[in-house]
Amino acid sequence: MTLAIKANLSSAAYSALDELSTVMKGDMNAVNALIIDNMQSSVPLIPQLAGYLIASGGKRIRPLITVASTRLFDSETTRPYRLAAAVEFIHTATLLHDDVVDESNQRRGKPSANIVFGNQSSVLVGDFLFSRAFELMVEDGSIEVLRILSNAAAVITEGEVLQLSIQSKLETSLEQYLEVIAAKTAILFAAACEIGPVIAGQPVTIQKAMHDYGHNLGMVFQIADDLLDYQADEAKLGKTIGDDFREGKMTVPVIYALQNATLDEKKFWKRCFEDHNQGEADLDTANSIIKTHKADQKAFELAKSYVDKAILAISILPSSPLKTNLEQLTFFALSRNK
Amino acid sequence: MTLAIKANLSSAAYSALDELSTVMKGDMNAVNALIIDNMQSSVPLIPQLAGYLIASGGKRIRPLITVASTRLFDSETTRPYRLAAAVEFIHTATLLHDDVVDESNQRRGKPSANIVFGNQSSVLVGDFLFSRAFELMVEDGSIEVLRILSNAAAVITEGEVLQLSIQSKLETSLEQYLEVIAAKTAILFAAACEIGPVIAGQPVTIQKAMHDYGHNLGMVFQIADDLLDYQADEAKLGKTIGDDFREGKMTVPVIYALQNATLDEKKFWKRCFEDHNQGEADLDTANSIIKTHKADQKAFELAKSYVDKAILAISILPSSPLKTNLEQLTFFALSRNK
Repeated sequence: MTLAIKANLSSAAYSALDELSTVMKGDMNAVNALIIDNMQSSVPLIPQLAGYLIASGGKRIRPLITVASTRLFDSETTRPYRLAAAVEFIHTATLLHDDVVDESNQRRGKPSANIVFGNQSSVLVGDFLFSRAFELMVEDGSIEVLRILSNAAAVITEGEVLQLSIQSKLETSLEQYLEVIAAKTAILFAAACEIGPVIAGQPVTIQKAMHDYGHNLGMVFQIADDLLDYQADEAKLGKTIGDDFREGKMTVPVIYALQNATLDEKKFWKRCFEDHNQGEADLDTANSIIKTHKADQKAFELAKSYVDKAILAISILPSSPLKTNLEQLTFFALSRNK
Repeated sequence: MTLAIKANLSSAAYSALDELSTVMKGDMNAVNALIIDNMQSSVPLIPQLAGYLIASGGKRIRPLITVASTRLFDSETTRPYRLAAAVEFIHTATLLHDDVVDESNQRRGKPSANIVFGNQSSVLVGDFLFSRAFELMVEDGSIEVLRILSNAAAVITEGEVLQLSIQSKLETSLEQYLEVIAAKTAILFAAACEIGPVIAGQPVTIQKAMHDYGHNLGMVFQIADDLLDYQADEAKLGKTIGDDFREGKMTVPVIYALQNATLDEKKFWKRCFEDHNQGEADLDTANSIIKTHKADQKAFELAKSYVDKAILAISILPSSPLKTNLEQLTFFALSRNK
């Protein structure tokens, strides 16, 4: 893919997210109000800590696609609001626990909650948000939605544990990597997109199509994220760059770079990942090895293949402006790779 | 209460737990099989870590009272099995996270999971068990049960955060302490006992009675536990003694001891709790201060008052051997104070 095409994708894609947010503005205001309401507690530390992360302005992509996947089929129901808030709480809980597990320092351009409030509070407030997510689902009352989201929650944690198990292991295969990101990231996108047709009473084929769309969108997001950790402009991304490298996380740029690695490069990765022996210049060296092997381009092409799958998944839906938004959202996810 | 009476309570009480376990043996075998089945995962570390804690033989009191509270009203249904497993998973998840939060070294007489497998794995496997608990509830399919247990889960974490907020604060009141233990411990006992009459289709008055029984039983357990942390024989208890003291947890023996503390004693508690400056002999000193003020006896009497409330709560139920077991279980909880 040439640079010119990449640039076009990028600008088209940013406006796709903006447009979807604009189209869903009324709905998302209702979701945000529910998010604020439901993180309240008589224990002041809970809204303080939860608010610190939630108010710091994530993209709210998961609640956005929860609402959008409902609006494709039902323009009236307010049922997705609670469920969108539940999805965001599950996501926020996993972020809080991830930052403890990864010993992260930054999140969304600010010191991460574990740094500001401590690991103990981050673990417990994560648990609180997780429980509150289930309370919101119970308020909605659909056992089918509860089934989808409780399964997603279990799969996410399996993905996180699997990721921990393969950490620093240079023999990690692309398949194992894809299994991890499908579980830790894509399942919640899939669940969020499946909820809409479920509560709108759509047939199983449509539920499955939206599930597949969400899964593939999630795959694009995570692969792009993993590329960004080697390539992005730290100030723009609002989180520390090189975290995956420092933690020895086996992500796709490294896996591709290892496929044709020279003996010296293998020694380099072994020292940095397996021996946990890293110096200041090593991240730059890693980046240039990745570029030498075009591992970044290959990773971009891999992400692009999931864009195609996402768009194919919803090809059975009739055309609509909202469907177009969702198609364009996949390019937004992809274009974060730059 | 004289020593002779205490001793009688104690032996009567131990046999009450044994007896309840024996009466429920068939049911509990089914519950245990479900517990083992549902902690399985394609990610090997999950059953390894979960199994380490679960197989280490807790008393299984929460699943036991879940089943017993159903058997009071329905001798046939197998519905409590899944829910009892769910209750045990919620409990196990909180233990895993507690041990991370408290930096504990021992649990049930063995090195705690965070020591053996690391904090990261303990956080994530706790999350997994928590999610799996909700999957089990979803399989059962009762929104009412989901409401009770998702609320309990949220309240537990609020209790844990509140406990963290008042840590080392000598001005903590008895009311705040009771609020913490009601939330972190008694709510799950209450929820477990409430589930039985709910799935057996009993009226709200009976559901409420069983909820109250469980709440008060949980209060007895926690107060007795907090006393044990100052008094017990470490080898018998199977966990480190003095943890609460070292962590500066404001529990009832300390709160009572502070009510009539001399100036020197206040300085002692301030140094140990607020300044986190503790020496080797300080736990012994704390114990003798507690005894001087009869704070241990007062705590025992407080626990006893919850025994009375628990028995009163189920006085509306007709007599039955199982009801007698549940009454005696409250004395078992109390008698752990020795």
